Amino acid sequence: MDSEAFVPLLRASLSQWKQRGKRAVWIKLPIELANLVEPAVKEGFKYHHAEPDYVMLVNWISKSTNSLPKNASHRVGISAFVMNDKREVLVVQEKSGKFKGTGVWKFPTGVVDEGEDISMAAIREVKEETGIDTEFVEILAFRQSHKSFFTKSDLLFVCMLRPRSFDIQKQDTEIEAAQWMPVEEYAEQAFMKRHDSFSSVAKVCLTKSEKEYAGFSPIPRTTASGKTTYLYFNTKDLTQV
Amino acid sequence: MDSEAFVPLLRASLSQWKQRGKRAVWIKLPIELANLVEPAVKEGFKYHHAEPDYVMLVNWISKSTNSLPKNASHRVGISAFVMNDKREVLVVQEKSGKFKGTGVWKFPTGVVDEGEDISMAAIREVKEETGIDTEFVEILAFRQSHKSFFTKSDLLFVCMLRPRSFDIQKQDTEIEAAQWMPVEEYAEQAFMKRHDSFSSVAKVCLTKSEKEYAGFSPIPRTTASGKTTYLYFNTKDLTQV
Repeated sequence: MDSEAFVPLLRASLSQWKQRGKRAVWIKLPIELANLVEPAVKEGFKYHHAEPDYVMLVNWISKSTNSLPKNASHRVGISAFVMNDKREVLVVQEKSGKFKGTGVWKFPTGVVDEGEDISMAAIREVKEETGIDTEFVEILAFRQSHKSFFTKSDLLFVCMLRPRSFDIQKQDTEIEAAQWMPVEEYAEQAFMKRHDSFSSVAKVCLTKSEKEYAGFSPIPRTTASGKTTYLYFNTKDLTQV
Repeated sequence: MDSEAFVPLLRASLSQWKQRGKRAVWIKLPIELANLVEPAVKEGFKYHHAEPDYVMLVNWISKSTNSLPKNASHRVGISAFVMNDKREVLVVQEKSGKFKGTGVWKFPTGVVDEGEDISMAAIREVKEETGIDTEFVEILAFRQSHKSFFTKSDLLFVCMLRPRSFDIQKQDTEIEAAQWMPVEEYAEQAFMKRHDSFSSVAKVCLTKSEKEYAGFSPIPRTTASGKTTYLYFNTKDLTQV
Protein backbone atom coordinates (compact mmCIF):
# COMPACT_ATOMS: atom_id res chain seq x y z
CA MET A 1 0.00 0.00 0.00
CA ASP A 2 1.32 3.47 -0.80
CA SER A 3 0.93 6.40 1.53
CA GLU A 4 -1.42 8.32 -0.79
CA ALA A 5 -3.99 5.54 -0.42
CA PHE A 6 -3.16 4.91 3.26
CA VAL A 7 -3.59 8.40 4.75
CA PRO A 8 -7.25 9.07 3.73
CA LEU A 9 -8.24 5.57 4.88
CA LEU A 10 -6.45 6.04 8.20
CA ARG A 11 -8.07 9.44 8.79
CA ALA A 12 -11.54 8.13 8.06
CA SER A 13 -11.00 5.15 10.34
CA LEU A 14 -9.59 7.27 13.19
CA SER A 15 -12.64 9.50 13.02
CA GLN A 16 -15.00 6.49 13.22
CA TRP A 17 -13.03 4.90 16.09
CA LYS A 18 -13.14 8.12 18.08
CA GLN A 19 -16.93 8.35 17.62
CA ARG A 20 -17.29 4.77 18.82
CA GLY A 21 -15.38 5.62 22.00
CA LYS A 22 -12.27 3.54 21.25
CA ARG A 23 -9.40 4.50 23.54
CA ALA A 24 -6.37 3.44 21.50
CA VAL A 25 -5.54 2.37 17.96
CA TRP A 26 -2.68 -0.03 17.24
CA ILE A 27 -0.93 -0.34 13.88
CA LYS A 28 1.56 -3.15 13.32
CA LEU A 29 3.65 -2.30 10.26
CA PRO A 30 5.79 -5.10 8.81
CA ILE A 31 9.20 -3.85 7.68
CA GLU A 32 8.07 -4.13 4.04
CA LEU A 33 5.65 -1.27 4.82
CA ALA A 34 8.32 1.04 6.28
CA ASN A 35 6.97 3.67 3.87
CA LEU A 36 3.86 3.99 6.08
CA VAL A 37 5.77 4.80 9.28
CA GLU A 38 6.15 8.50 8.53
CA PRO A 39 2.49 9.03 7.47
CA ALA A 40 1.28 7.19 10.61
CA VAL A 41 3.49 9.38 12.83
CA LYS A 42 2.12 12.49 11.10
CA GLU A 43 -1.41 11.33 12.03
CA GLY A 44 -0.46 11.25 15.71
CA PHE A 45 0.89 7.71 16.20
CA LYS A 46 3.89 7.03 18.43
CA TYR A 47 6.13 3.96 18.54
CA HIS A 48 5.24 1.32 21.13
CA HIS A 49 7.84 -1.37 20.40
CA ALA A 50 9.67 -2.99 17.51
CA GLU A 51 11.10 -6.38 16.62
CA PRO A 52 13.48 -6.95 13.67
CA ASP A 53 10.68 -7.38 11.15
CA TYR A 54 7.99 -4.98 12.34
CA VAL A 55 7.27 -1.80 14.27
CA MET A 56 4.15 -1.41 16.42
CA LEU A 57 2.67 2.08 16.61
CA VAL A 58 -0.12 3.28 18.84
CA ASN A 59 -2.35 6.31 19.02
CA TRP A 60 -4.12 7.11 22.30
CA ILE A 61 -7.28 8.76 20.95
CA SER A 62 -9.29 8.94 24.16
CA LYS A 63 -9.48 11.95 26.48
CA SER A 64 -9.00 9.63 29.48
CA THR A 65 -5.60 9.03 31.07
CA ASN A 66 -3.30 6.92 28.95
CA SER A 67 -3.34 3.38 30.38
CA LEU A 68 -1.39 1.56 27.67
CA PRO A 69 0.57 -1.50 28.78
CA LYS A 70 4.23 -0.72 29.31
CA ASN A 71 6.86 -2.06 27.00
CA ALA A 72 9.15 -4.94 28.01
CA SER A 73 11.86 -3.58 30.31
CA HIS A 74 14.02 -6.59 31.19
CA ARG A 75 16.20 -9.15 29.56
CA VAL A 76 16.40 -12.41 31.54
CA GLY A 77 19.52 -14.56 31.80
CA ILE A 78 20.66 -17.72 33.56
CA SER A 79 23.91 -18.81 35.14
CA ALA A 80 24.17 -22.59 35.66
CA PHE A 81 25.66 -24.27 38.74
CA VAL A 82 26.20 -27.92 37.72
CA MET A 83 28.11 -30.14 40.17
CA ASN A 84 28.98 -33.84 39.88
CA ASP A 85 29.40 -36.42 42.66
CA LYS A 86 33.11 -35.57 42.97
CA ARG A 87 32.20 -31.98 43.96
CA GLU A 88 33.43 -30.70 40.60
CA VAL A 89 31.55 -27.86 38.88
CA LEU A 90 31.08 -27.39 35.14
CA VAL A 91 32.94 -24.24 34.04
CA VAL A 92 33.79 -22.54 30.76
CA GLN A 93 36.00 -19.80 29.35
CA GLU A 94 34.26 -17.59 26.80
CA LYS A 95 35.73 -16.48 23.47
CA SER A 96 34.21 -13.00 23.56
CA GLY A 97 32.77 -10.50 26.01
CA LYS A 98 34.40 -8.97 29.05
CA PHE A 99 35.88 -12.25 30.29
CA LYS A 100 37.75 -12.93 27.01
CA GLY A 101 41.41 -13.65 27.65
CA THR A 102 41.11 -13.21 31.44
CA GLY A 103 41.57 -16.89 32.23
CA VAL A 104 38.51 -16.73 34.50
CA TRP A 105 36.52 -19.98 34.70
CA LYS A 106 32.82 -19.21 34.99
CA PHE A 107 29.49 -20.99 35.04
CA PRO A 108 27.75 -21.46 31.67
CA THR A 109 25.61 -18.35 31.17
CA GLY A 110 23.07 -17.29 28.58
CA VAL A 111 19.98 -15.32 27.68
CA VAL A 112 16.46 -16.75 28.10
CA ASP A 113 14.71 -16.78 24.72
CA GLU A 114 11.42 -15.01 24.24
CA GLY A 115 8.65 -17.28 25.53
CA GLU A 116 11.09 -19.74 27.16
CA ASP A 117 10.85 -21.01 30.75
CA ILE A 118 13.85 -20.13 32.93
CA SER A 119 14.43 -23.79 33.82
CA MET A 120 14.34 -24.85 30.15
CA ALA A 121 16.76 -22.05 29.21
CA ALA A 122 19.28 -23.25 31.83
CA ILE A 123 19.12 -26.83 30.54
CA ARG A 124 19.46 -25.62 26.92
CA GLU A 125 22.42 -23.31 27.55
CA VAL A 126 24.39 -25.98 29.44
CA LYS A 127 23.75 -28.45 26.62
CA GLU A 128 24.69 -25.93 23.92
CA GLU A 129 27.90 -24.73 25.54
CA THR A 130 29.22 -28.00 26.99
CA GLY A 131 27.19 -30.92 25.59
CA ILE A 132 26.22 -31.95 29.14
CA ASP A 133 22.66 -33.21 29.79
CA THR A 134 21.10 -31.93 32.99
CA GLU A 135 17.91 -31.80 35.01
CA PHE A 136 16.75 -28.65 36.74
CA VAL A 137 16.87 -28.51 40.56
CA GLU A 138 16.40 -24.98 41.92
CA ILE A 139 16.96 -21.27 41.57
CA LEU A 140 19.53 -20.41 44.25
CA ALA A 141 19.65 -16.62 43.85
CA PHE A 142 19.04 -13.89 41.33
CA ARG A 143 20.38 -10.45 40.55
CA GLN A 144 18.64 -7.41 39.08
CA SER A 145 20.89 -4.87 37.33
CA HIS A 146 20.02 -1.77 35.33
CA LYS A 147 21.21 -0.12 32.10
CA SER A 148 22.55 -3.46 30.95
CA PHE A 149 21.86 -2.68 27.30
CA PHE A 150 20.47 0.62 26.07
CA THR A 151 18.07 1.65 28.85
CA LYS A 152 16.95 -1.88 29.72
CA SER A 153 17.53 -3.99 32.83
CA ASP A 154 18.69 -7.52 33.42
CA LEU A 155 17.53 -10.31 35.72
CA LEU A 156 20.13 -13.08 36.08
CA PHE A 157 18.94 -16.30 37.75
CA VAL A 158 21.56 -18.59 39.30
CA CYS A 159 20.20 -22.07 38.61
CA MET A 160 21.30 -25.38 40.13
CA LEU A 161 21.16 -28.33 37.74
CA ARG A 162 22.01 -32.00 38.27
CA PRO A 163 24.22 -33.52 35.54
CA ARG A 164 22.90 -36.56 33.65
CA SER A 165 25.99 -36.97 31.46
CA PHE A 166 29.65 -36.16 32.08
CA ASP A 167 31.63 -36.11 28.81
CA ILE A 168 32.16 -32.51 27.76
CA GLN A 169 31.79 -31.58 24.10
CA LYS A 170 32.26 -27.86 24.02
CA GLN A 171 30.67 -25.53 21.54
CA ASP A 172 33.45 -24.06 19.39
CA THR A 173 32.18 -20.66 18.25
CA GLU A 174 31.52 -19.13 21.69
CA ILE A 175 33.47 -21.28 24.14
CA GLU A 176 37.30 -21.30 24.40
CA ALA A 177 37.48 -24.12 26.95
CA ALA A 178 35.25 -26.15 29.26
CA GLN A 179 36.04 -28.51 32.12
CA TRP A 180 34.95 -30.01 35.42
CA MET A 181 36.75 -28.14 38.23
CA PRO A 182 36.76 -28.76 42.03
CA VAL A 183 34.15 -26.38 43.49
CA GLU A 184 36.59 -24.95 46.06
CA GLU A 185 39.10 -24.19 43.27
CA TYR A 186 36.34 -22.37 41.37
CA ALA A 187 35.47 -20.26 44.40
CA GLU A 188 39.14 -19.53 45.16
CA GLN A 189 39.82 -17.82 41.82
CA ALA A 190 41.24 -14.33 42.46
CA PHE A 191 38.55 -12.77 40.27
CA MET A 192 35.75 -14.34 42.33
CA LYS A 193 37.24 -13.16 45.60
CA ARG A 194 37.71 -9.62 44.28
CA HIS A 195 34.09 -9.06 43.25
CA ASP A 196 31.41 -9.35 45.90
CA SER A 197 28.61 -10.22 43.47
CA PHE A 198 30.62 -13.24 42.25
CA SER A 199 31.94 -14.25 45.68
CA SER A 200 28.40 -14.10 47.14
CA VAL A 201 27.08 -16.39 44.42
CA ALA A 202 30.02 -18.75 44.96
CA LYS A 203 29.22 -18.87 48.70
CA VAL A 204 25.56 -19.62 47.99
CA CYS A 205 26.61 -22.48 45.70
CA LEU A 206 29.16 -23.83 48.20
CA THR A 207 26.52 -23.77 50.94
CA LYS A 208 24.06 -25.52 48.63
CA SER A 209 26.66 -28.17 47.79
CA GLU A 210 26.70 -29.03 51.49
CA LYS A 211 22.89 -29.32 51.38
CA GLU A 212 22.10 -26.62 53.93
CA TYR A 213 20.51 -24.10 51.60
CA ALA A 214 16.92 -23.92 50.26
CA GLY A 215 16.37 -22.19 46.93
CA PHE A 216 13.18 -21.75 44.89
CA SER A 217 11.81 -24.73 42.92
CA PRO A 218 9.53 -24.44 39.89
CA ILE A 219 6.03 -25.88 40.37
CA PRO A 220 3.63 -25.86 37.40
CA ARG A 221 0.45 -23.90 38.10
CA THR A 222 -2.54 -22.70 36.11
CA THR A 223 -3.25 -18.97 36.11
CA ALA A 224 -6.70 -17.42 36.40
CA SER A 225 -6.77 -17.01 32.62
CA GLY A 226 -6.00 -20.71 32.11
CA LYS A 227 -2.34 -20.53 31.12
CA THR A 228 0.23 -22.99 32.45
CA THR A 229 3.07 -21.21 34.21
CA TYR A 230 5.77 -22.00 36.74
CA LEU A 231 5.57 -20.66 40.28
CA TYR A 232 9.01 -20.65 41.93
CA PHE A 233 9.17 -20.83 45.73
CA ASN A 234 10.89 -22.47 48.69
CA THR A 235 9.46 -25.99 48.63
CA LYS A 236 11.70 -27.13 51.49
CA ASP A 237 9.84 -24.85 53.92
CA LEU A 238 6.47 -25.50 52.28
CA THR A 239 5.96 -28.98 50.88
CA GLN A 240 2.22 -28.87 50.20
CA VAL A 241 0.59 -26.29 47.95
CA MET B 1 17.42 16.02 7.46
CA ASP B 2 15.63 14.94 4.31
CA SER B 3 16.10 11.56 2.72
CA GLU B 4 17.76 12.93 -0.43
CA ALA B 5 20.64 14.20 1.71
CA PHE B 6 20.58 11.20 4.08
CA VAL B 7 20.88 8.29 1.64
CA PRO B 8 24.20 9.25 -0.08
CA LEU B 9 25.76 10.02 3.33
CA LEU B 10 24.56 6.72 4.75
CA ARG B 11 25.87 4.75 1.76
CA ALA B 12 29.30 6.39 1.93
CA SER B 13 29.50 5.76 5.69
CA LEU B 14 28.41 2.12 5.38
CA SER B 15 31.11 1.54 2.79
CA GLN B 16 33.77 3.04 5.08
CA TRP B 17 32.56 1.11 8.13
CA LYS B 18 32.67 -2.18 6.21
CA GLN B 19 36.24 -1.46 5.11
CA ARG B 20 37.21 -0.77 8.71
CA GLY B 21 35.86 -4.15 9.76
CA LYS B 22 32.89 -2.85 11.79
CA ARG B 23 30.39 -5.61 12.52
CA ALA B 24 27.19 -3.65 13.07
CA VAL B 25 25.84 -0.14 12.55
CA TRP B 26 23.16 1.32 14.84
CA ILE B 27 20.88 4.22 13.91
CA LYS B 28 18.64 5.77 16.55
CA LEU B 29 15.96 7.80 14.81
CA PRO B 30 13.91 10.17 16.99
CA ILE B 31 10.25 10.18 15.99
CA GLU B 32 10.73 13.61 14.38
CA LEU B 33 12.91 11.83 11.79
CA ALA B 34 10.32 9.17 10.91
CA ASN B 35 10.91 10.19 7.30
CA LEU B 36 14.31 8.44 7.45
CA VAL B 37 12.94 5.05 8.54
CA GLU B 38 12.03 3.90 5.03
CA PRO B 39 15.36 4.96 3.44
CA ALA B 40 17.32 3.23 6.24
CA VAL B 41 15.31 0.02 5.74
CA LYS B 42 16.02 0.19 1.98
CA GLU B 43 19.75 0.33 2.77
CA GLY B 44 19.50 -2.95 4.69
CA PHE B 45 18.66 -1.84 8.25
CA LYS B 46 16.22 -3.78 10.42
CA TYR B 47 14.36 -2.67 13.54
CA HIS B 48 15.97 -3.56 16.85
CA HIS B 49 13.61 -1.95 19.34
CA ALA B 50 11.47 1.15 19.80
CA GLU B 51 10.28 3.38 22.61
CA PRO B 52 7.48 5.97 22.21
CA ASP B 53 9.82 8.68 20.92
CA TYR B 54 12.40 6.79 18.87
CA VAL B 55 13.10 3.67 16.85
CA MET B 56 16.51 1.96 16.91
CA LEU B 57 17.60 0.29 13.68
CA VAL B 58 20.60 -1.93 13.14
CA ASN B 59 22.48 -3.28 10.15
CA TRP B 60 24.72 -6.34 10.64
CA ILE B 61 27.39 -5.59 8.01
CA SER B 62 29.93 -8.27 8.94
CA LYS B 63 30.17 -11.70 7.32
CA SER B 64 30.50 -13.28 10.80
CA THR B 65 27.53 -14.75 12.65
CA ASN B 66 25.12 -12.12 13.96
CA SER B 67 25.81 -11.71 17.69
CA LEU B 68 23.61 -8.67 18.41
CA PRO B 69 22.23 -8.40 21.95
CA LYS B 70 18.66 -9.62 22.16
CA ASN B 71 15.81 -7.23 22.77
CA ALA B 72 14.08 -7.00 26.16
CA SER B 73 11.68 -9.93 26.49
CA HIS B 74 10.04 -9.52 29.90
CA ARG B 75 7.89 -7.13 31.82
CA VAL B 76 8.40 -7.36 35.60
CA GLY B 77 5.63 -6.93 38.14
CA ILE B 78 5.18 -7.09 41.89
CA SER B 79 2.38 -8.32 44.15
CA ALA B 80 2.63 -7.02 47.72
CA PHE B 81 1.88 -9.10 50.85
CA VAL B 82 1.57 -6.57 53.70
CA MET B 83 0.38 -7.88 57.08
CA ASN B 84 -0.13 -5.99 60.33
CA ASP B 85 0.23 -7.28 63.92
CA LYS B 86 -3.45 -8.33 63.97
CA ARG B 87 -2.77 -10.79 61.09
CA GLU B 88 -4.69 -8.57 58.70
CA VAL B 89 -3.46 -8.17 55.12
CA LEU B 90 -3.70 -5.07 52.96
CA VAL B 91 -6.05 -5.77 50.02
CA VAL B 92 -7.65 -3.79 47.21
CA GLN B 93 -10.35 -4.04 44.58
CA GLU B 94 -9.33 -2.66 41.18
CA LYS B 95 -11.47 -0.40 39.00
CA SER B 96 -10.34 -1.94 35.71
CA GLY B 97 -8.79 -5.12 34.35
CA LYS B 98 -10.01 -8.67 34.65
CA PHE B 99 -10.88 -8.39 38.35
CA LYS B 100 -13.21 -5.39 37.82
CA GLY B 101 -16.61 -6.01 39.39
CA THR B 102 -15.71 -9.50 40.64
CA GLY B 103 -15.60 -8.53 44.30
CA VAL B 104 -12.23 -10.27 44.62
CA TRP B 105 -9.91 -8.72 47.21
CA LYS B 106 -6.33 -8.94 46.01
CA PHE B 107 -2.86 -7.80 47.00
CA PRO B 108 -1.70 -4.43 45.60
CA THR B 109 -0.03 -5.21 42.27
CA GLY B 110 1.88 -3.19 39.71
CA VAL B 111 4.54 -3.00 37.05
CA VAL B 112 8.21 -2.32 37.87
CA ASP B 113 9.33 0.85 36.07
CA GLU B 114 12.28 0.80 33.72
CA GLY B 115 15.46 1.02 35.80
CA GLU B 116 13.62 0.48 39.11
CA ASP B 117 14.63 -2.04 41.79
CA ILE B 118 11.99 -4.68 42.55
CA SER B 119 11.97 -3.81 46.26
CA MET B 120 11.52 -0.09 45.53
CA ALA B 121 8.69 -0.83 43.09
CA ALA B 122 6.82 -2.83 45.74
CA ILE B 123 7.12 -0.01 48.29
CA ARG B 124 6.04 2.56 45.67
CA GLU B 125 3.00 0.60 44.45
CA VAL B 126 1.69 -0.01 47.99
CA LYS B 127 2.09 3.69 48.78
CA GLU B 128 0.41 4.79 45.52
CA GLU B 129 -2.56 2.45 45.77
CA THR B 130 -3.24 2.59 49.51
CA GLY B 131 -1.19 5.39 51.10
CA ILE B 132 0.50 2.85 53.41
CA ASP B 133 4.23 3.26 54.16
CA THR B 134 6.18 0.00 54.22
CA GLU B 135 9.64 -1.48 54.40
CA PHE B 136 10.74 -4.35 52.22
CA VAL B 137 11.26 -7.78 53.82
CA GLU B 138 11.58 -10.59 51.24
CA ILE B 139 10.57 -12.07 47.93
CA LEU B 140 8.45 -15.08 48.84
CA ALA B 141 7.86 -16.53 45.36
CA PHE B 142 7.70 -15.52 41.72
CA ARG B 143 5.89 -16.60 38.58
CA GLN B 144 7.00 -16.55 34.97
CA SER B 145 4.25 -16.45 32.37
CA HIS B 146 4.40 -16.06 28.60
CA LYS B 147 2.50 -14.14 25.93
CA SER B 148 1.32 -11.72 28.57
CA PHE B 149 1.27 -8.81 26.13
CA PHE B 150 2.04 -9.17 22.43
CA THR B 151 4.79 -11.81 22.34
CA LYS B 152 6.42 -10.76 25.63
CA SER B 153 6.63 -12.55 28.97
CA ASP B 154 5.98 -11.55 32.54
CA LEU B 155 7.81 -12.12 35.82
CA LEU B 156 5.63 -11.43 38.87
CA PHE B 157 7.44 -11.24 42.22
CA VAL B 158 5.40 -11.82 45.39
CA CYS B 159 6.97 -9.44 47.90
CA MET B 160 6.53 -9.34 51.67
CA LEU B 161 6.55 -5.86 53.19
CA ARG B 162 6.20 -4.70 56.77
CA PRO B 163 3.73 -1.82 57.28
CA ARG B 164 5.02 1.39 58.88
CA SER B 165 1.66 3.19 58.81
CA PHE B 166 -1.90 1.89 59.03
CA ASP B 167 -4.41 4.52 57.88
CA ILE B 168 -5.50 3.69 54.35
CA GLN B 169 -5.86 6.52 51.82
CA LYS B 170 -6.77 4.79 48.60
CA GLN B 171 -5.87 6.04 45.17
CA ASP B 172 -9.14 6.96 43.43
CA THR B 173 -8.46 6.49 39.73
CA GLU B 174 -7.39 2.82 39.77
CA ILE B 175 -8.64 1.48 43.11
CA GLU B 176 -12.32 0.86 43.92
CA ALA B 177 -11.75 -0.08 47.56
CA ALA B 178 -8.94 -0.91 49.98
CA GLN B 179 -8.96 -2.42 53.47
CA TRP B 180 -7.16 -4.50 56.08
CA MET B 181 -8.63 -8.03 55.99
CA PRO B 182 -7.90 -11.06 58.21
CA VAL B 183 -5.36 -13.19 56.31
CA GLU B 184 -7.44 -16.36 56.64
CA GLU B 185 -10.46 -14.54 55.17
CA TYR B 186 -8.30 -13.41 52.24
CA ALA B 187 -7.13 -16.98 51.57
CA GLU B 188 -10.67 -18.39 51.93
CA GLN B 189 -12.11 -16.32 49.06
CA ALA B 190 -13.76 -18.65 46.54
CA PHE B 191 -11.68 -17.20 43.71
CA MET B 192 -8.41 -17.97 45.50
CA LYS B 193 -9.42 -21.54 46.19
CA ARG B 194 -10.50 -22.09 42.58
CA HIS B 195 -7.18 -21.06 41.00
CA ASP B 196 -4.08 -22.97 41.97
CA SER B 197 -1.68 -20.14 41.16
CA PHE B 198 -3.53 -17.86 43.61
CA SER B 199 -4.10 -20.53 46.25
CA SER B 200 -0.41 -21.51 46.15
CA VAL B 201 0.65 -17.93 46.71
CA ALA B 202 -1.88 -17.61 49.55
CA LYS B 203 -0.42 -20.75 51.17
CA VAL B 204 3.12 -19.39 50.87
CA CYS B 205 1.99 -16.16 52.55
CA LEU B 206 0.08 -17.99 55.29
CA THR B 207 3.14 -20.13 55.99
CA LYS B 208 5.32 -17.03 56.07
CA SER B 209 2.91 -15.32 58.46
CA GLU B 210 3.61 -18.19 60.89
CA LYS B 211 7.35 -17.54 60.43
CA GLU B 212 8.28 -20.94 59.06
CA TYR B 213 9.17 -19.91 55.51
CA ALA B 214 12.42 -18.45 54.12
CA GLY B 215 12.21 -16.29 51.01
CA PHE B 216 14.90 -14.34 49.16
CA SER B 217 16.23 -11.08 50.66
CA PRO B 218 17.90 -8.32 48.66
CA ILE B 219 21.55 -7.67 49.52
CA PRO B 220 23.37 -4.82 47.75
CA ARG B 221 26.38 -6.03 45.78
CA THR B 222 28.84 -4.51 43.32
CA THR B 223 29.13 -6.17 39.91
CA ALA B 224 32.41 -6.80 38.07
CA SER B 225 31.76 -3.66 36.00
CA GLY B 226 31.30 -1.56 39.17
CA LYS B 227 27.53 -1.17 39.21
CA THR B 228 25.53 -1.46 42.42
CA THR B 229 22.87 -4.14 42.15
CA TYR B 230 20.75 -6.29 44.45
CA LEU B 231 21.42 -9.99 44.81
CA TYR B 232 18.35 -11.82 46.15
CA PHE B 233 18.88 -15.08 48.04
CA ASN B 234 17.90 -17.10 51.11
CA THR B 235 19.65 -15.23 53.92
CA LYS B 236 18.09 -17.47 56.58
CA ASP B 237 20.11 -20.45 55.35
CA LEU B 238 23.19 -18.35 54.60
CA THR B 239 23.80 -15.44 56.94
CA GLN B 240 27.35 -14.50 55.89
CA VAL B 241 28.27 -13.55 52.33
